[in-house]
Amino acid sequence: MHSTSEHAIHTILVGQSGGPTTAINASLAGIIRAAHAQGLRVLGMRNGIQGFLEGNVVDLIEVLELEKPKLGALKQADTNLGEKNLQLLRKTPSSWLGSCRFKLPELEANSTSGASSESTANSKSAAVSPIYQQIDLQLKKYQVDAVLYIGGNDSMDTADKLSRYFAQVESAVRVVGVPKTIDNDLEGTDHTPGFGSAARFVASVTAELTRDGGVYNTKNVTFIEAMGRDAGWLTAAGALAQDICGTAPDFVLLPEVPLDVNALLSAIEQRLREKNNVIVVVSEGVHHADGSFLFDAKSVAIDTFGHLAAQSGTAQYLSQLVKDQLGVKSRGIELNTLQRCASHAASKVDLDEAEALGAAGVKAVLQGKTGVMVGVHRIPNEPYTTEIRTTPVADVANKVKLVPREMISEDGFNVTDTALTYLRPLVAGIEEPVSVDGLPRFLAELP
Amino acid sequence: MHSTSEHAIHTILVGQSGGPTTAINASLAGIIRAAHAQGLRVLGMRNGIQGFLEGNVVDLIEVLELEKPKLGALKQADTNLGEKNLQLLRKTPSSWLGSCRFKLPELEANSTSGASSESTANSKSAAVSPIYQQIDLQLKKYQVDAVLYIGGNDSMDTADKLSRYFAQVESAVRVVGVPKTIDNDLEGTDHTPGFGSAARFVASVTAELTRDGGVYNTKNVTFIEAMGRDAGWLTAAGALAQDICGTAPDFVLLPEVPLDVNALLSAIEQRLREKNNVIVVVSEGVHHADGSFLFDAKSVAIDTFGHLAAQSGTAQYLSQLVKDQLGVKSRGIELNTLQRCASHAASKVDLDEAEALGAAGVKAVLQGKTGVMVGVHRIPNEPYTTEIRTTPVADVANKVKLVPREMISEDGFNVTDTALTYLRPLVAGIEEPVSVDGLPRFLAELP
Repeated sequence: MHSTSEHAIHTILVGQSGGPTTAINASLAGIIRAAHAQGLRVLGMRNGIQGFLEGNVVDLIEVLELEKPKLGALKQADTNLGEKNLQLLRKTPSSWLGSCRFKLPELEANSTSGASSESTANSKSAAVSPIYQQIDLQLKKYQVDAVLYIGGNDSMDTADKLSRYFAQVESAVRVVGVPKTIDNDLEGTDHTPGFGSAARFVASVTAELTRDGGVYNTKNVTFIEAMGRDAGWLTAAGALAQDICGTAPDFVLLPEVPLDVNALLSAIEQRLREKNNVIVVVSEGVHHADGSFLFDAKSVAIDTFGHLAAQSGTAQYLSQLVKDQLGVKSRGIELNTLQRCASHAASKVDLDEAEALGAAGVKAVLQGKTGVMVGVHRIPNEPYTTEIRTTPVADVANKVKLVPREMISEDGFNVTDTALTYLRPLVAGIEEPVSVDGLPRFLAELP
Repeated sequence: MHSTSEHAIHTILVGQSGGPTTAINASLAGIIRAAHAQGLRVLGMRNGIQGFLEGNVVDLIEVLELEKPKLGALKQADTNLGEKNLQLLRKTPSSWLGSCRFKLPELEANSTSGASSESTANSKSAAVSPIYQQIDLQLKKYQVDAVLYIGGNDSMDTADKLSRYFAQVESAVRVVGVPKTIDNDLEGTDHTPGFGSAARFVASVTAELTRDGGVYNTKNVTFIEAMGRDAGWLTAAGALAQDICGTAPDFVLLPEVPLDVNALLSAIEQRLREKNNVIVVVSEGVHHADGSFLFDAKSVAIDTFGHLAAQSGTAQYLSQLVKDQLGVKSRGIELNTLQRCASHAASKVDLDEAEALGAAGVKAVLQGKTGVMVGVHRIPNEPYTTEIRTTPVADVANKVKLVPREMISEDGFNVTDTALTYLRPLVAGIEEPVSVDGLPRFLAELP
């Protein structure tokens, strides 16, 4: 963590990167409001660092029609158009500034090419990819003093590389990361903005699908597939439906534990002796002990049209297995992309924290911090209480935080109370949508 | 429409049948509240007429802990436990009494077998299936005066057959149908309870997925698949996202119009020249001009495990076609079972009407009506105003109401303003869930 407090901040540049979430715009709103309250200029990069390289930059104070703060006028802020726009931005799903998936090249060229033997520790700037100089030039052109980058572990890699580059070339530009991902797999934060809303959606629909599965007086098994290739956090959130439905979901299958398919079928068979309506929440990433996925789209034969690519069919695969092996009705339901954009089911705690983290990012750069990510930390042994701290982005970049063993039941077929206790506060609160005649309204798209 | 007002009503029997919806329990709550207010005994059949035949009957006044109404006590009703249970029942998804898919045999045995030449118009009761006598015996056992059956066109077939049977055997038992189906394909009603909530879900998530599709600065096509094998009402509801997102969805493909796939690909290609993010809402039931489905699970090759049965892959099929033929990114998203159970996104108008229709069903039997279904009728040329009328169930049973041509654009690739004007009031209003810490609560399941 570096401090470069010698330069005052006038202009911050903010970007969104990676997969969109329901909360990523709440962080953007938090950044804009906090920066504007300090009289800063706030620029937005369209489509992340990639759009920025192409000069795709907007003045967010201008486009959101935020007035310059006047002494004593802040109390009336919520009545003005700018504040209304920020409130609508908070509730708007997906990445309002647009996103990108763009990996910056390694900072030390010889670490990847291995051929630049002429580069030495004393001539670093000569060795790095020209892309860094291009970014530097763009930052100077827009007189940017600090970059706030909202994203997941790939985006923190970008933040890490940029902050290390600026340190090398002795630039005063600060870089602070603001976390987001529905996967909840970031180090350096108790949980990630976007996860709570996705978790609330998964838990709610798991409960609804549980009731739906119970209507006919016949034995049946429902597999509900949640996102999370590596980390099972969202799948675990399905277990919150137990607070609504009692024992269901009966089984919760995370990618952290290799799946013994025969043991699962036996356990389901046993459960079917006790009840009709068995519910299984399963991660798209569950795999066999040898690491191979249960269902791999690549192994699927193509139909006569040459046209079938089932993109994630773990639930369908398991449901077919249950029909074949146990001879009972079964269905597979994929929750798909809705998990990351169902703003109509957003968690208020999630959006509140996302906004607070955005504001904390502004505070961090004003305090002279760089190369850090702001994160939520939970105070142990208290009713849900958090504080915001910073962590070096290098400790977050490219890492994946898995569901720890103590949150998974011994047989690997469910989660423990520790998991439910961890999850419950994150889905708390209903975010009231801005709506007209029953349908939501979003902030208008940027032209 | 028969009137048999000579017998007073003491006991009504209510059942739910067919696929569950978000609103079917609101109709049940409406029936129970209205009947209880009249001092009637209200019995519920578990798992529809099938469970009733097996004697699976519950006293709903008892299990819901509704007190007997006392003179002057009705104003405090909302503070008692029973009323709280009814309010929770209204917001509980799926069929609380359980459901069945059970077709009563034809009433006139010779109309199906053609072999009972000994049956004549004067000995009808001898010719009918013994199942009708069994039902009659069960009704006498429970002293039932009227049956209210909540369901779709198959359930109205049951109501029709029962009421005709009772007329034949001169039983005083009355039968009234209460509509429900997310498909909105019933005659005798402007729209069906359950449709408005499903439509609100489809419209909301179509808007959310539209925003989700716009984050990357690349051309891409999203296909969103809605339910409705024969009737495209729910698919049409996706077009309401145009009120939120402007031009998206760009295309709305109903099963009412045969799909010319090449014309669609040309239209998409044209649209991709104007914008990056093209959104198509497509019915699971779209088909070629020859009537064959675009995507038929049966035609899909099985993978090496012998295990693939993609249940409805129209969106995935089209998305693969776009990738192959147009060379752009594309994804297929199936909204699946959530459409019929997403109570977290229920329409208040839908639940209000579902309750009102339940109460109207009670009123109809008290007025001596039988063999009718209660339905919502829209008063033309007014701001959304409705009244409840009855229609002979025979005019509803086994019929399918399709989206009329004037609601579909000339090229068949979208809906018209007439459709949007029809749809808008049905999704109006947000039904506040009963929730604890951000998660919904449902009425406890019957044991």
